[in-house]
Amino acid sequence: MKALVLEEIHKLSLRDFPIDAAEKDLAPRDVRIKLHTVGICGSDVHYYTHGRIGPFVVEEPMILGHEASGTVIEIGAEVTSLAVGDRVCMEPGIPDPNSKATRLGLYNVDPAVRFWATPPVHGILRPTCVHPEAFTFKLPDSVSFAEAAMVEPLAVGVHAATKAEIRPGDVALVMGAGPIGLVTALSALAAGCARVYVCDLDDAKLEIAAKLGAITPINVTREDPAKRILAETDGWGAEIVFEATGSPKAAASVFEPLSPGGRVVMIGGQAEPIAYDAGAAMVREARVENIFRYAHVFPRCVKMLASGAIDVKPLITRTFAFEDSVKAFEIAASAPKGDVKMQIELPQ
Amino acid sequence: MKALVLEEIHKLSLRDFPIDAAEKDLAPRDVRIKLHTVGICGSDVHYYTHGRIGPFVVEEPMILGHEASGTVIEIGAEVTSLAVGDRVCMEPGIPDPNSKATRLGLYNVDPAVRFWATPPVHGILRPTCVHPEAFTFKLPDSVSFAEAAMVEPLAVGVHAATKAEIRPGDVALVMGAGPIGLVTALSALAAGCARVYVCDLDDAKLEIAAKLGAITPINVTREDPAKRILAETDGWGAEIVFEATGSPKAAASVFEPLSPGGRVVMIGGQAEPIAYDAGAAMVREARVENIFRYAHVFPRCVKMLASGAIDVKPLITRTFAFEDSVKAFEIAASAPKGDVKMQIELPQ
Amino acid sequence: MKALVLEEIHKLSLRDFPIDAAEKDLAPRDVRIKLHTVGICGSDVHYYTHGRIGPFVVEEPMILGHEASGTVIEIGAEVTSLAVGDRVCMEPGIPDPNSKATRLGLYNVDPAVRFWATPPVHGILRPTCVHPEAFTFKLPDSVSFAEAAMVEPLAVGVHAATKAEIRPGDVALVMGAGPIGLVTALSALAAGCARVYVCDLDDAKLEIAAKLGAITPINVTREDPAKRILAETDGWGAEIVFEATGSPKAAASVFEPLSPGGRVVMIGGQAEPIAYDAGAAMVREARVENIFRYAHVFPRCVKMLASGAIDVKPLITRTFAFEDSVKAFEIAASAPKGDVKMQIELPQ
Amino acid sequence: MKALVLEEIHKLSLRDFPIDAAEKDLAPRDVRIKLHTVGICGSDVHYYTHGRIGPFVVEEPMILGHEASGTVIEIGAEVTSLAVGDRVCMEPGIPDPNSKATRLGLYNVDPAVRFWATPPVHGILRPTCVHPEAFTFKLPDSVSFAEAAMVEPLAVGVHAATKAEIRPGDVALVMGAGPIGLVTALSALAAGCARVYVCDLDDAKLEIAAKLGAITPINVTREDPAKRILAETDGWGAEIVFEATGSPKAAASVFEPLSPGGRVVMIGGQAEPIAYDAGAAMVREARVENIFRYAHVFPRCVKMLASGAIDVKPLITRTFAFEDSVKAFEIAASAPKGDVKMQIELPQ
Repeated sequence: MKALVLEEIHKLSLRDFPIDAAEKDLAPRDVRIKLHTVGICGSDVHYYTHGRIGPFVVEEPMILGHEASGTVIEIGAEVTSLAVGDRVCMEPGIPDPNSKATRLGLYNVDPAVRFWATPPVHGILRPTCVHPEAFTFKLPDSVSFAEAAMVEPLAVGVHAATKAEIRPGDVALVMGAGPIGLVTALSALAAGCARVYVCDLDDAKLEIAAKLGAITPINVTREDPAKRILAETDGWGAEIVFEATGSPKAAASVFEPLSPGGRVVMIGGQAEPIAYDAGAAMVREARVENIFRYAHVFPRCVKMLASGAIDVKPLITRTFAFEDSVKAFEIAASAPKGDVKMQIELPQ
Repeated sequence: MKALVLEEIHKLSLRDFPIDAAEKDLAPRDVRIKLHTVGICGSDVHYYTHGRIGPFVVEEPMILGHEASGTVIEIGAEVTSLAVGDRVCMEPGIPDPNSKATRLGLYNVDPAVRFWATPPVHGILRPTCVHPEAFTFKLPDSVSFAEAAMVEPLAVGVHAATKAEIRPGDVALVMGAGPIGLVTALSALAAGCARVYVCDLDDAKLEIAAKLGAITPINVTREDPAKRILAETDGWGAEIVFEATGSPKAAASVFEPLSPGGRVVMIGGQAEPIAYDAGAAMVREARVENIFRYAHVFPRCVKMLASGAIDVKPLITRTFAFEDSVKAFEIAASAPKGDVKMQIELPQ
Repeated sequence: MKALVLEEIHKLSLRDFPIDAAEKDLAPRDVRIKLHTVGICGSDVHYYTHGRIGPFVVEEPMILGHEASGTVIEIGAEVTSLAVGDRVCMEPGIPDPNSKATRLGLYNVDPAVRFWATPPVHGILRPTCVHPEAFTFKLPDSVSFAEAAMVEPLAVGVHAATKAEIRPGDVALVMGAGPIGLVTALSALAAGCARVYVCDLDDAKLEIAAKLGAITPINVTREDPAKRILAETDGWGAEIVFEATGSPKAAASVFEPLSPGGRVVMIGGQAEPIAYDAGAAMVREARVENIFRYAHVFPRCVKMLASGAIDVKPLITRTFAFEDSVKAFEIAASAPKGDVKMQIELPQ
Repeated sequence: MKALVLEEIHKLSLRDFPIDAAEKDLAPRDVRIKLHTVGICGSDVHYYTHGRIGPFVVEEPMILGHEASGTVIEIGAEVTSLAVGDRVCMEPGIPDPNSKATRLGLYNVDPAVRFWATPPVHGILRPTCVHPEAFTFKLPDSVSFAEAAMVEPLAVGVHAATKAEIRPGDVALVMGAGPIGLVTALSALAAGCARVYVCDLDDAKLEIAAKLGAITPINVTREDPAKRILAETDGWGAEIVFEATGSPKAAASVFEPLSPGGRVVMIGGQAEPIAYDAGAAMVREARVENIFRYAHVFPRCVKMLASGAIDVKPLITRTFAFEDSVKAFEIAASAPKGDVKMQIELPQ
């Protein structure tokens, strides 16, 4: 079957790839899925342009893609919650069910997790895949395949909002208006924030943010978020600050806009240690949560999309056919202004 | 000045009442407020029709009303956060600042709380009142006096939703579609629930509920909420059940629709001990929160009304002029179908 | 092999029982254990004297016993954390690893749990058993087999103390001085309580309790625990109340001694709904946790026994040889004063 | 009256100081206390040797001392919980009761706190002082004045242990074996830890630590704490890491020994931003709590000293008479090996 293969750094091809043999037989609790829509994630692009992310190096040709929705076309002998024909979305990381972390419910921090499109594990920009029932989630009719392929990035925002222990009426700041910043802002509003400030360097991104709800955009090149928020909260500050830029400079400033007793959630990855203002953290008794992907939130995301609690449709700015997927990656790698999420549709 | 006075059970009069003398001088941290809008609460009506609520007995003529908004007309010498002309809403209970509960932040359970329209403390269906700055909250222009007078009942719902520790995407059941049930449903949605089931005996109330968002109404005379919810959640149940009826029968059934690890919030008051199904609670490891009024949520409610996170306007179904307030109470005491909250406007 | 078999109500025999055939082959992640010490639990005795516990009815001969320690004598092909010769204790309930509750970390409330000596699952009063590695915990040298066989009941107390979210310096009341009440009192002290009140009807049990640490015994036939605690805490009350009697009358009185913002943990099982004083719960904003067995606490218990944080040795009041186990059950069924936990040692 | 006055940097005198006039009249909720024992804190010594701590500069002669116990000798008109003759200890920081932080229960992060021996507020190395009833705590007979003067530093440890949300059986690492490290280790054990590792550079301090309970000392000049802890916990790590050194290097290494889902508590103050290994924090989903002094823990500490849950007596290594207090500070400033806490006794 044809797949989008990252042959090596800077080299993509859409070609036959012999993965189907390995997936010929279904384990009793697995399902086979015909892929429908796959989103392009920054990490996919990063492997394409850099050939690695931290310790994960592309040493063999690897299929890209991990934000996916599709249709069940075969089920294992012991599958009970899914049937052929079910429309589904899939969680891309599979932990060891016997690890201590998994048993405690913290499967996302199990070091043995196998995650799509993270070397040496293949992604799902291909016609079909095999996946465990436990990480495959049925969609109601009201959630489209395009929205369902957004569940993976949305899950990061919902996990961050969950860890923040938002209380209804909190004020939050989201640092960064990229795709993760925006899903975090949406999640924070859905989780009870009365108002969410979103800051970024880029007006185009902030314009998109501003349309998503009770959001106040701040361009940090022109205005200091901490000053603005303190002024608008009688000097109290934001109860929650989400760091979603991955920029060391942004990460070094998370405590300034924070209220006494406030919570910081570190989402953006950092290559090097960051400067942590322990004094500023202490006088506020700040709590800092550091999150890694997500756990247990896919079905929650599906329910929130279905009920309208969260609407991700404004974030899907471009859709490509599978045969144009190399071109889609080239465009994504050029970081076009005004685009948030690009998706690829597979032939049905 | 004229006030709405409950002379004794079943007897209301709108008459001069000599309370202004006692309030002639402002303490340094107090403000004087010209009342604008006052909501009629079930407890006001209950004092009118029964002359008491539990241990609180109307033994002297008492001014009714505790859901209020107005305008600051004078400030004490040390007031810093409010100015003459500010539009405000007021929290009706004033605790002892030196009690252990208050210092821990639990001022609502301080036994020394003095609460408007709870004998022997007068309410505020009168032209002006004096109140501590710390329990008086400034309104932004976007929040009307009518909405602001809804903050008091809304605060019960927001406090309940806060105690429930809702996680984004939870499913909740609210038992009871009266005013407190409806503000709880609104609060639960704003706090992150993907869907809220609301059950009641009365179709008229359920019709109002159904229009408030991602709400599924259930008439318990025709359908079992537990069965419906279990069927629609693959047998898992609702993560949260709010008991807002005050009915012993409803309170006895809170665990049936509840998921493993779920939380119950008891809001409705009960005159007698209720039947608690400890076995059903245990096999789910249910957590039960019992709430009493609210603490620290008024400014949160104001922010959520201002941002649109919560809209209480559909709950305000009738407004009376102050001179018609005796009639307003007679109508309220007749429990008219289709009415949620009635309010009284004072002359400005 | 010989096993202690409950043939039917009131009839025990120590006889050959053909369970070994079924356990001939080890699954890859299982271990085979030679049993050393087995404690007699109230539930074992209850099956003997009543033939059932709630919905669980003894319809076929069943081996008793679920509080156990022993030595690993064989390991499955994929076992990595245990070796032949390791001294171990075992968690008696095995959940479905794929259930939603298990994946969330709440495996104890998974309805599919298979639990030793709960019909139709056999217990371990027999020479050997086969058990999953994941529920088998290695003992350090400093923990004896007798102590290790106490981990199972201790786990209930530690789980209760964990759910109580004890803050250092809290005052607790434990209702009931039976084995579960005593392990709960020990756990509450180890978890940070400054003082634990223990109440019961029986002076013999209270005398044992009083020797276990900073414990104040109260005989409820002579003194009201609520009055005593309120008097000794300046009217504040106990921050935590553990209900470990299973008595409806005791369960109906959990809120009287409780402080504002306090937590109640319901441990004792109840056959019928209990009387719940919702008014008393509300004015304190009580939180009630309902617990079911335990989850994730066995290795914690082992560490606490090893470090001396908890000492269960005073609770082991009598030990029998395996060949006397029928007699041991007869004695246990007579509820002798002064006995807390009886154990049976298997031939090595 | 005579007081120990820091005249300027490096210059102490025991001399008459005219503070009594200002304290002639008692406010209604204040008490007058005859001081008995005062501990020497590192911050007292730091003002002596450096003349400042961060923004707090000694510009006028200032009385030192803030760790104190004594006897009530006069009470204000509205004092109800204390009587003349009561033995007490005192919390040295008084917040503004009307600030938002105080009302939320977070009074320690109220910027308006007035704290003894923090310029321009005088300390209590003097015969008497006046203090609010609400921050003065009665001692039971079993707690000595010397132990009571340890409540202030102990409160830091107990607050840290409270914020850590220790679960019974957790393993902790305390970085630093100075007075704050040691009270933290004691608090962590009392709060439920099965074992506490304490690391430091100094063998003399580690020897003292090792005698305090289930404590494993690690000298970081000879052994890597992370390696040791990972080896002794099957690669899992410590559930909790307390940073109590104030050393940037130590603070930069808090995540290495930490388990998945673990919590870090930052206690030690830092003059400059520290290096924060965001990547290591993320893969563990670490939670970091930053604490500032303490709130609500003094009465808890008194109860734990009274019940024996915590024993601080081994930490009191030297006692001086008040007339030798200049000498006491000189000795303290020399940082003698083997000393933990020095105290000064006032003439009675």
